[in-house]
Amino acid sequence: MQEVKAYGAQSSDADLKQMTIKRRELNANDVKIEILYCGVCHSDIHAKNNDWGNAKYPIVPGHEIVGKVTETGSDVNKFKEGDIVAVGCMVDSCLECPSCNNDLEQFCENGMTGTYNGKDKIGGAESDHTFGGYSTSITVREEFVLSVPENLDLAAAAPLLCAGITTYSPLNHWNIKKGDKVGVVGLGGLGHMGIKFAAAMGAETIMITTSLGKKEDAKKLGADGVLISTDDDQMKEHKGSFDFILNTVPVKHDINPYLNLLTIDGTMCMVGAIEPLEPMHGGNLIIGRKRVAGSLIGGIKETQEMLDFCGEKNITCDIEMINIDEINEAFQRVQDSDVKYRFVIDMQSLKN
Amino acid sequence: MQEVKAYGAQSSDADLKQMTIKRRELNANDVKIEILYCGVCHSDIHAKNNDWGNAKYPIVPGHEIVGKVTETGSDVNKFKEGDIVAVGCMVDSCLECPSCNNDLEQFCENGMTGTYNGKDKIGGAESDHTFGGYSTSITVREEFVLSVPENLDLAAAAPLLCAGITTYSPLNHWNIKKGDKVGVVGLGGLGHMGIKFAAAMGAETIMITTSLGKKEDAKKLGADGVLISTDDDQMKEHKGSFDFILNTVPVKHDINPYLNLLTIDGTMCMVGAIEPLEPMHGGNLIIGRKRVAGSLIGGIKETQEMLDFCGEKNITCDIEMINIDEINEAFQRVQDSDVKYRFVIDMQSLKN
Repeated sequence: MQEVKAYGAQSSDADLKQMTIKRRELNANDVKIEILYCGVCHSDIHAKNNDWGNAKYPIVPGHEIVGKVTETGSDVNKFKEGDIVAVGCMVDSCLECPSCNNDLEQFCENGMTGTYNGKDKIGGAESDHTFGGYSTSITVREEFVLSVPENLDLAAAAPLLCAGITTYSPLNHWNIKKGDKVGVVGLGGLGHMGIKFAAAMGAETIMITTSLGKKEDAKKLGADGVLISTDDDQMKEHKGSFDFILNTVPVKHDINPYLNLLTIDGTMCMVGAIEPLEPMHGGNLIIGRKRVAGSLIGGIKETQEMLDFCGEKNITCDIEMINIDEINEAFQRVQDSDVKYRFVIDMQSLKN
Repeated sequence: MQEVKAYGAQSSDADLKQMTIKRRELNANDVKIEILYCGVCHSDIHAKNNDWGNAKYPIVPGHEIVGKVTETGSDVNKFKEGDIVAVGCMVDSCLECPSCNNDLEQFCENGMTGTYNGKDKIGGAESDHTFGGYSTSITVREEFVLSVPENLDLAAAAPLLCAGITTYSPLNHWNIKKGDKVGVVGLGGLGHMGIKFAAAMGAETIMITTSLGKKEDAKKLGADGVLISTDDDQMKEHKGSFDFILNTVPVKHDINPYLNLLTIDGTMCMVGAIEPLEPMHGGNLIIGRKRVAGSLIGGIKETQEMLDFCGEKNITCDIEMINIDEINEAFQRVQDSDVKYRFVIDMQSLKN
């Protein structure tokens, strides 16, 4: 096993602290990656706090990883030492079931392995659950390693691996294109990427927010307009006009006002709220043959396509860089929605 | 104006009684229809009782109409005296907006005119709201008159005009075909047609019900199997296996257990519950990229296609025939779910 510096928590109410973890020795199909940057996702906080009731401790969060290949197993063809690569929310799946064969490893019928807090089916490491990217190095089977386009700022690219693919995938799956009117609800880590992607795909992109204060920010990110959802006149004006709404709100809320904004056959896709919503009125779907859908990150193939799209369009996240010893403060600020729009840890700060 | 015998109510708490209404003289594009049969839809009861708060009195319900053409206006080309025709839930729309141009008159941007209780934009009649099919004759513009295939039993064909199109349209729109696994939730007027249509389209058709007692009935209607939704083992066995679920439950309920039955990218379409549902868990959409949709009757073109499909496959509704003076008792029995599966009024009983 290989000793690696990491930052993790020993329990739900403990702060993250420096620790040493042991990763497996390289298998023939493994890629060893020196982690350069790791984004801070709201999920990291939910997991650390055991909000979903499935946390295993110690927990080392982090699934928005950009780094450099330092070693490859004997069978690895796709990557070589020195390559700039990325790892997202998954590090393993069966690669045999219909979902995996359909490039939807996130829905692997045998269970995909999360980058952290996942049941490690490969073995050979200190723990039987996976440790994430808040560390100096990670070892991942090559099928789950992605290539990062050379022109991207590497720190700002890190959150593409979760916030990016989570918003790109539904916009791509529902074939958003020039001529469509797309709404993005919520302006956080996910929402700000939703705006960038929808605009880059050519759609008329409208930020839908409760907060007038976000207007200028949304326009800077590429939104064509801002709809204040608490303004009845504005909501009436936009009624029935949106082809697609990307809903990034991460908590319980009332989706009925947004359903009224959809055009006939329009879809609202939920990517944030993994909890019970306020009661939906059946008539809001029936009148206009509307749809509410969900989407979870994206498969590996689509994640690579997303990174390539970002390379082509020069899209990265808006980030605030921190050192690893600022992580507990950053967690608090994420919970207070006090970040534009994603913290990224400069992992050099853990190496020193 | 033309005097016509009808059955209607003067207020929400009054019984239906015989009355005389006055229909307009024929316009050039009108078809006058002697009503032979009219189905009894649950909506008739909601409307009469003013459950939706928009009832206008006197109210003459009925939007599942089959009859015979007795007269046509000078510009009518599609129909002639003696033709067997049908009228469904709509008798008018603008025919100019994008929805109407897209054969979705039910979503007319200027508002379609319901067959009863609708604002009559054509005029020339006694009332400024429309009177429905619980009457001996109706006058309808030809664009909203449908042809009934000759081989169908006319009484059993009447409920196709609402229960039929309401279930056919989503199955057709979502392209249900051989190889698909389709669930139908709820075995009433809508559900029994959902089973017939899904089976006729070639899908593996499973009745999903809380009631073991409906098993034999569902199989007689063409279901390949029955899933008892209160049986946890059965629900687990079918988890993630349905490509499409047609949910005909007409009241507030918990849709989460059904979402768990959907396969990846599967859709559940609501056609009954025009009211707030129990809270939906966002994760049930996000995990598996699932969708909940709604659908409302169908456009005129699709309604004709449905009738033609029924002619080809010899599909009609399972009905219990009544005379008009039994209508108040029938309303009570519909509310008690005591009908297999639709009452149809023999309108000869009003003519005598």
